Amino acid sequence: MSNASGHGFEREGRRFRIDDPRAMPHASSFLWNRRMMVQVTCRGFATAQFMQPEPAKYARAPVLEARSFMQPEQPTYAHHPGRFCYVRDDEDGTLFSLPYEPVRALPESFAFRADVDAVSWRIGHLGLVFEWRLGLPADDIAELWTLRVRNRCGRTRRLSLYPYFPVGYLSWMHQSACHRADLGGIVCSSVTPYQKVEDYFVQRDFMDRTVLLHANAPDAWDANQAAFEGEGGLHAPSAICDAELLGGRVADYELPAAVLQYRIVLDAGASHEERFVFAPARDDAQVLALRKKYLDDGEGFDKAATDYGTYLSHGRGCIDIRTPDGWFDAFANQWLPRQVYYHGDANRLTTDPQTRNYLQDHMGMAYLQPATARAALLRALSQQGADGAMPDGILLAEGAQLKYINQVPHTDHCVWLPVFLQAYLDETGDVALLDVPVVDGDGHAASVAERVDAAMHWLLSARDARGLGYIAQGDWCDPMNMVGYKGRGVSGWLTLATAHALRLWAGIRARHGGEAVAAPFAEGARACNAAVNAHLWDGDWYGRGITDDGVAFGVHTDAEGAIYLNPQSWAMLSGAADEAKRARMLAAIEARLVGPHGVAMLDPPYTAMREDVGRLTQKFPGSAENGSIYNHAAAFYLHALYASGDADRAWRVLRAMLPGPDADDLLRRGQLPVFVPNYYRGDWRGHPRTAGRSSQLFNTGTAAWLYRCLIEGLFGLRGEAEGLRIAPCLPSHWHEASVLRRFRGASIEVHMRRIAGTDGMSVRVDGAVLETPLLRDIVAGGHYRVDVALPG
Amino acid sequence: MSNASGHGFEREGRRFRIDDPRAMPHASSFLWNRRMMVQVTCRGFATAQFMQPEPAKYARAPVLEARSFMQPEQPTYAHHPGRFCYVRDDEDGTLFSLPYEPVRALPESFAFRADVDAVSWRIGHLGLVFEWRLGLPADDIAELWTLRVRNRCGRTRRLSLYPYFPVGYLSWMHQSACHRADLGGIVCSSVTPYQKVEDYFVQRDFMDRTVLLHANAPDAWDANQAAFEGEGGLHAPSAICDAELLGGRVADYELPAAVLQYRIVLDAGASHEERFVFAPARDDAQVLALRKKYLDDGEGFDKAATDYGTYLSHGRGCIDIRTPDGWFDAFANQWLPRQVYYHGDANRLTTDPQTRNYLQDHMGMAYLQPATARAALLRALSQQGADGAMPDGILLAEGAQLKYINQVPHTDHCVWLPVFLQAYLDETGDVALLDVPVVDGDGHAASVAERVDAAMHWLLSARDARGLGYIAQGDWCDPMNMVGYKGRGVSGWLTLATAHALRLWAGIRARHGGEAVAAPFAEGARACNAAVNAHLWDGDWYGRGITDDGVAFGVHTDAEGAIYLNPQSWAMLSGAADEAKRARMLAAIEARLVGPHGVAMLDPPYTAMREDVGRLTQKFPGSAENGSIYNHAAAFYLHALYASGDADRAWRVLRAMLPGPDADDLLRRGQLPVFVPNYYRGDWRGHPRTAGRSSQLFNTGTAAWLYRCLIEGLFGLRGEAEGLRIAPCLPSHWHEASVLRRFRGASIEVHMRRIAGTDGMSVRVDGAVLETPLLRDIVAGGHYRVDVALPG
Repeated sequence: MSNASGHGFEREGRRFRIDDPRAMPHASSFLWNRRMMVQVTCRGFATAQFMQPEPAKYARAPVLEARSFMQPEQPTYAHHPGRFCYVRDDEDGTLFSLPYEPVRALPESFAFRADVDAVSWRIGHLGLVFEWRLGLPADDIAELWTLRVRNRCGRTRRLSLYPYFPVGYLSWMHQSACHRADLGGIVCSSVTPYQKVEDYFVQRDFMDRTVLLHANAPDAWDANQAAFEGEGGLHAPSAICDAELLGGRVADYELPAAVLQYRIVLDAGASHEERFVFAPARDDAQVLALRKKYLDDGEGFDKAATDYGTYLSHGRGCIDIRTPDGWFDAFANQWLPRQVYYHGDANRLTTDPQTRNYLQDHMGMAYLQPATARAALLRALSQQGADGAMPDGILLAEGAQLKYINQVPHTDHCVWLPVFLQAYLDETGDVALLDVPVVDGDGHAASVAERVDAAMHWLLSARDARGLGYIAQGDWCDPMNMVGYKGRGVSGWLTLATAHALRLWAGIRARHGGEAVAAPFAEGARACNAAVNAHLWDGDWYGRGITDDGVAFGVHTDAEGAIYLNPQSWAMLSGAADEAKRARMLAAIEARLVGPHGVAMLDPPYTAMREDVGRLTQKFPGSAENGSIYNHAAAFYLHALYASGDADRAWRVLRAMLPGPDADDLLRRGQLPVFVPNYYRGDWRGHPRTAGRSSQLFNTGTAAWLYRCLIEGLFGLRGEAEGLRIAPCLPSHWHEASVLRRFRGASIEVHMRRIAGTDGMSVRVDGAVLETPLLRDIVAGGHYRVDVALPG
Repeated sequence: MSNASGHGFEREGRRFRIDDPRAMPHASSFLWNRRMMVQVTCRGFATAQFMQPEPAKYARAPVLEARSFMQPEQPTYAHHPGRFCYVRDDEDGTLFSLPYEPVRALPESFAFRADVDAVSWRIGHLGLVFEWRLGLPADDIAELWTLRVRNRCGRTRRLSLYPYFPVGYLSWMHQSACHRADLGGIVCSSVTPYQKVEDYFVQRDFMDRTVLLHANAPDAWDANQAAFEGEGGLHAPSAICDAELLGGRVADYELPAAVLQYRIVLDAGASHEERFVFAPARDDAQVLALRKKYLDDGEGFDKAATDYGTYLSHGRGCIDIRTPDGWFDAFANQWLPRQVYYHGDANRLTTDPQTRNYLQDHMGMAYLQPATARAALLRALSQQGADGAMPDGILLAEGAQLKYINQVPHTDHCVWLPVFLQAYLDETGDVALLDVPVVDGDGHAASVAERVDAAMHWLLSARDARGLGYIAQGDWCDPMNMVGYKGRGVSGWLTLATAHALRLWAGIRARHGGEAVAAPFAEGARACNAAVNAHLWDGDWYGRGITDDGVAFGVHTDAEGAIYLNPQSWAMLSGAADEAKRARMLAAIEARLVGPHGVAMLDPPYTAMREDVGRLTQKFPGSAENGSIYNHAAAFYLHALYASGDADRAWRVLRAMLPGPDADDLLRRGQLPVFVPNYYRGDWRGHPRTAGRSSQLFNTGTAAWLYRCLIEGLFGLRGEAEGLRIAPCLPSHWHEASVLRRFRGASIEVHMRRIAGTDGMSVRVDGAVLETPLLRDIVAGGHYRVDVALPG
């Protein structure tokens, strides 16, 4: 147990906790299963989505919301969706609410606890101790809430408990709500609006109800938001403050709400428990099935918790670590693989993930569930175009369509095929995958290897006369949508990424196809590197690209956006940069991109739109990507640093990707280290107040890369065809570290220790010294102990 | 001055007022000009839109809102957009807010006043009297706010005034806010999100700023919503309650807000005034132009008020009435023509009005600004299809597109051409319009008359073998989208409406083209009527239609939706119904559709979707159209009743379309009689609690029809080719009424009086008895006095 500093944050084993709801108001954790996700803040606000098959919500804002992707730094407000429980002392009328909103009465003690399998609060106030806890089922779309109260004050108490689940504006076509005694809960009904006949047939089976089901019948209820609030408002609802009992008021084309009242008498020392299910449903039958499974069966919640634990265990990581940094251990052992698993199993709760994201997310999944990663690659390749190009998004559900950003042409999707395969093959040794035939939408069959060949040839073909890759309306960087929309602009990063992909693929093809097959790819890689060196080396770093009108950008003469991180990282990976260039790049990165909160994606931040570059420049300082520490880019840089053994620099970059460990850093980030966010605000010179702040968004390719960097970089436990290569890259201030590495079915216990006065690394396996640090002939089911002595 | 009943509603001349913000929380008034609209509730919530060219908002919800049409019965909530002013007594810290939200401290006196040219509050509290007033400019997109406070308590007071204008969630791409001393106000900046390059070029000139400009520099300010609220929340913001001065905090990719603080010392009897402009703007230059025009010039607000009065005067109605019903007079003289003007001048703030709505709105405009109505008809006809069909919407702006419901094929649009023309020609005598050539999108020119001929032929052709008109995915009734989507379903109403349109057109064509040209239309009308009589007379009323699968609906054997109002009304207009049928229909309407709050559109209300009828049936009882008193349909019925001289029945229908005059009715409707809403909830048997409640939506074809019914029906002052026909249809309990009728440039003073014991009507003009009640040879600029003696 280590207390951060008395600021109210604690790590309790694998759990993180917050002791003050005011200090980090937006700090959150999230739970998910394959069909739903719910993110909950320490103050009780919640954002939940489920798939039907497109993402939908069962609790919404009090206004018609736009359908959009999850937004970063989403503000909260009094009527933001949340899960609350008002508590009234029926003797003196004192009112407060769990966990903190909506009343905002500061309790005597407060603990928001983020566990891997639950979110809970433990709150002490006025001689009472409450537990308010959310769990999820493994399969169903439902929130399982438990409320416990214990009387610790030495005398009998009379209380009213009011679970309050706002439901929001469900539909202009129809919305209503009432208590249904026969179903055992409040049922909010709605009809998703449609105007075109064809939409009707899609929507008629939607789960358009939102229900709050109870195990025990309440003493009273309200289902009408306005009637519940009255003139008192959310912080002091008239239905609670002005009346003994809730009014039993229905909503009838009015804003629904779900409020229950339990009047309890609690003897000294006694406790009371209630259970609730909050969920979407289609009809009475679905509601009844939920109540039967979770409420009528007294063990329903316990069974669900067991099942959910089993579900999570299927996403267990491939390393368990112990290092001198306990916070980091908790993150690496529990939270990071969990986030990787979320991406790979729930696919960010979208039906059309960007191809780039899908392949990288499943690159992460290769370390948890190789079979799932494998299937994802096959699915992606089945949607490859006849010309070898990959589409902008991978459709996962019947009837799914490319939406939003996936309607904007990007040119980098093919790059991620060899990147995925390198990691997947290293981890699994499953070379048979390369020969698996894949049938595409036209009915054409080709093996995985042939399809990747085609993708690589497409990349090579999509270059201009200089050999630089066309960017169209974006590459990895979505907002860069005006560089090449006229068809001429090129991307320096993409050309380097193409070179890296070609090199990886040439390496794979040399082993599985032969040198003759590999040669054109190796040659292509050289050509790409040469083109970038010829046209985009800017003296101290690589430029980002050249616009339709021939203007190089991301170069030192630019007043804004003069240097971008990605081209430098990938020039290190692709082999474009020689040692001299590499040294200059690293110096430039340190001087210009490294700040107190991490490594920025570009600098200086744009202050105005650049019409030849694109959307990015509209994201003014302090907003989203612009000038931010974009962790996905930081992770590429990290990968490149580990590839070159730059241990201490890498550790600094890595550690800055996580909040903490000190309380000041946590406060500034405003986030617990239970996920790595897609960005932190970065513009510490221009916007010092908000620099470092987390986006609170856990959808990010960062998770997979960061996990890969830990496994293969930091701990240097990377697979290859013959076995496990051992090449740790620990920061110099770590004197030891232990890793339990799960690899191809074996358990490998690795103990790393610095031995003062030694020079090189030595590796012993079960006591015997290894000549080369490669553990071969690994047997599935086997246990190995590896001792690594590192220079001290 | 007549007080409704002590419930807190008053009419002061042409102004309506509410004395308690709790009694009718959603009661509202609205102001508009051609570029913007703002609807304000008595509690201070506001919904505003402006055109750029599509409707946009400069103050929004705290969450990303969907772009949608204006929604009925829109709920409010703490963070709903509004315009407020907190007031803190700097001696004792007492806090309240104008007008009522967000603090909700009930003031000692409260008056919300809806004037035709302003919305204002007069509020007395703690010895102070406040006025909080909104006016609009005639042309600019800006709200002009005045705050006045007078000290009436006999001692010096120290106060802080905090105008607070929430701005909401502007954009995920960029949002920020700060005070700009150089511009004299708080400037909230944003970038409307775009992902596709082509959108950039549309959006880059958007007015993406929201500004609150002040005449006098404040003592302090805040521009960050969360920082302003703190832990206190909107009802007790920490920035006010915990600090002497606002903190000057900016928003930086955070929720913006505009809050100012004025610390004033007010001697006994003294007063203080501040002025503010709240508006969208594109850049500094636009902001400076606003401040120069309205704030730097001390008379800017006064000039704007004068100009806005001039603007409104261009929409003056064509009748000024005095009747025994004072509330009705105020409505008819000021509010109804104002609503008609809004529709005709601002076109409901849409760039693609439904063709049906556009033609009916401009039918109303014929009584206010015939030239505008004329131009609208020509614009509509210029978008006619080559086959004579009218499109689903009329595009008003360059680049506008058919949206929402206009992407769903409806088949009634042609009907409204003769309906419009009949009213327009009656009012103006402008038969020259019929020969005006109109060039369509294909470059084809044809006269108005020829185009209407083509439209009528299209209607005749779009019928099945029985002679009934195809409904496709809707006719007048949008939600009836599944009756005929397979291409076979027919509409009884549409067939009757076609008959009526053909009869009208045959009449016009007989005078302007000759009997031979008119004959096919007259014959078509007879055929349509005959078809409906053959296939849809149900014994006591006309059925609504026959589905794709041959099922007649809106018939007595239907358990739900057995009778619809529209087919009955239009059978009366089209001549389909003979006297016997008419008597049966009227009896059925009285028995089944007339309820305590008006005439319902259908009965019994649907309780579930009927998959062969459509969207309507998803609107469960108590929601929107289903089972409601849909005023547009009630107005058709009213028109039909006046056409047949059914004076008392008509008056009952008419009066039920307006809230009041008694306080109980106002409370139930929840609306002031400053506009006629599109519906009231109607299901008084099934949903008594909410029956009668207003939609609060003032976009409705009702306004034009109701105004027409007053002019031509109730007061019987209808134009025809030779002059003004006089045929009043006053309710029997009115003993007299006076009307000043403006007609073709003349002023005609009409005094109607019942003379006991007389039998027929007699009409004198300037003292001379008229043989037939037709005032001929009217000279523009002339004044006439008409005395009408009615049977007593």
